[in-house]
Amino acid sequence: MNEAAFLTALRALPLHPGARGLADDAAVLGTQVLTHDMLVEGVHFLPTDPAGDVAWKLVAVNLSDLAAKGAVPTGVLMGYGLAGDDAWDRAFLAGLAETLTAFACPLLGGDTVVLPKGAPRMLSLTAIGEASVAPARSGARMGDALWVTGTIGDAGAGLAIAQGADGPGELLARYRRPVPRLAEGLALAPLVSAMMDVSDGLLIDASRMAAASGCGVAIELGDVPLSDALRSMPSPTFVSSAVEKSPHSAQSGFSTSLETNGRGEGLSELGTVLAAVTAGDDYELLFALAPGLQPPVPATRIGMFAAGPGLTLTHRGEPVPLPKRLGFEHSA
Amino acid sequence: MNEAAFLTALRALPLHPGARGLADDAAVLGTQVLTHDMLVEGVHFLPTDPAGDVAWKLVAVNLSDLAAKGAVPTGVLMGYGLAGDDAWDRAFLAGLAETLTAFACPLLGGDTVVLPKGAPRMLSLTAIGEASVAPARSGARMGDALWVTGTIGDAGAGLAIAQGADGPGELLARYRRPVPRLAEGLALAPLVSAMMDVSDGLLIDASRMAAASGCGVAIELGDVPLSDALRSMPSPTFVSSAVEKSPHSAQSGFSTSLETNGRGEGLSELGTVLAAVTAGDDYELLFALAPGLQPPVPATRIGMFAAGPGLTLTHRGEPVPLPKRLGFEHSA
Repeated sequence: MNEAAFLTALRALPLHPGARGLADDAAVLGTQVLTHDMLVEGVHFLPTDPAGDVAWKLVAVNLSDLAAKGAVPTGVLMGYGLAGDDAWDRAFLAGLAETLTAFACPLLGGDTVVLPKGAPRMLSLTAIGEASVAPARSGARMGDALWVTGTIGDAGAGLAIAQGADGPGELLARYRRPVPRLAEGLALAPLVSAMMDVSDGLLIDASRMAAASGCGVAIELGDVPLSDALRSMPSPTFVSSAVEKSPHSAQSGFSTSLETNGRGEGLSELGTVLAAVTAGDDYELLFALAPGLQPPVPATRIGMFAAGPGLTLTHRGEPVPLPKRLGFEHSA
Repeated sequence: MNEAAFLTALRALPLHPGARGLADDAAVLGTQVLTHDMLVEGVHFLPTDPAGDVAWKLVAVNLSDLAAKGAVPTGVLMGYGLAGDDAWDRAFLAGLAETLTAFACPLLGGDTVVLPKGAPRMLSLTAIGEASVAPARSGARMGDALWVTGTIGDAGAGLAIAQGADGPGELLARYRRPVPRLAEGLALAPLVSAMMDVSDGLLIDASRMAAASGCGVAIELGDVPLSDALRSMPSPTFVSSAVEKSPHSAQSGFSTSLETNGRGEGLSELGTVLAAVTAGDDYELLFALAPGLQPPVPATRIGMFAAGPGLTLTHRGEPVPLPKRLGFEHSA
């Protein structure tokens, strides 16, 4: 079963009302927000990623779900697979201490398991938070504007750098040490019609928000915020056969650019932005805001919710066909 | 690092007060109880175990932690590794539906991940419950009696049966479909000085309760409740080299009996009980009760908390040396 089929099957199980139909980033129990994510070596992180960065990412990706619901972290429960590598464990623990301190998010409990020899490292985390308002992913209305915090595509480029491409260290840091937008989420929660974090790629996540909200969404690619570091990245390093063949390829999304420009030349501006909006691991906040409202935190307006289902793209006003892959989708 | 060293290191991290120093079965946030466990194929379940039973066990072992805190389940968040085996996934989902219904415990959310090829299956679960009183593991006092619900050792024998030994189906069911003692936990919680579930073996878990409570504990092995099915099990099937060599050997504990009787003869009564009290996966409740108090649910008095640290054993009043292994301890 692929992820979508499995999720559909899960929706047929006895669900708690707080599960929000398994169509949101997190569950909501009164004022409490709960989210659970697993990280698996070779899927969500590279064997060569520093252990301390893996600890950071494990916590950060879960706190990003809390941020999307405007929640303040209460604590986390962690599941940790011991693989008999003391140096890795110690570096992980040091990174975890740093992360929990940085986000004022203490450990509540967890579980350890000794992994069978040769098994990939496995980690799980449940994050708990408190939110007075927890905006759903499904509340966007026709006419709402679509906004996003920060810049898009940096982590995807950072993954390519982690795999050997040339590029600035700040992009690598965006991949290895994403910063959940907790303060922004808290400020935005009372104002937005819908909010979620961008984890699988801007296009696929925006499509999901539109689908959950029962409307369509139009994105102007020319308005998608790209960092100077990403714009300055030497384009041939965006794609590599290593990235394309690795389990991360779908996550990096940068193989998309191969389709638009496979001649080894520099990527076009459109190629760069298409690569960015189909890359994963951004952990920015994507939100719908009623027309006329201005967000209280730095953010960029990139589109609008519209009638009719689905996603439509333009670039400087010209229609752009949808790329074959909108982002990271699990399949098995 | 082994589990004990890792746990010690975790205790040096920023901890939530509700973590109870990571010395309890579950975290406690006000009236809420939270617990998190991982199951890994080849460690916690066999590749040959039916998928529906694995689903049952995943939920049951977590609900057992809630039972030990007298909590009523609110819901669960699940992490599921997709391994590209549709039949297994479907059987798992059917078992999960059955389990959630059986325990009136709906799904709150979760995460799926596509496992790398050849990786062992991995599952994680966070269970949430509500408890008006959540007894700690650490509250036992000198003079308290030690009690246990149900019978001990059945699941350990069931594991041997799952691995090919002869034996009754009811023991196999105790291994594959443990029933968390939720009603008993709820009734006991207001009365006990300390409570925990028996998951790693009666002896090791009783030692942990005593250590957490700052006292010693004496167990009379002749009083440990054994099922008729276990007593009737042909003893040579208790041990096998397959069990001894497998990652489950430590969990089954039945290799202990080899030390007391390795001559292929029937196990002595003491051999049987030593095997039972060092086997894991019982998911019975172990609790301390002030002298003179009677539990409101069926349970057996098996010992007493005493001065001085550590565990002491007797059998019909005669001292018994501690077995080399008290139960299942993770090591890596």
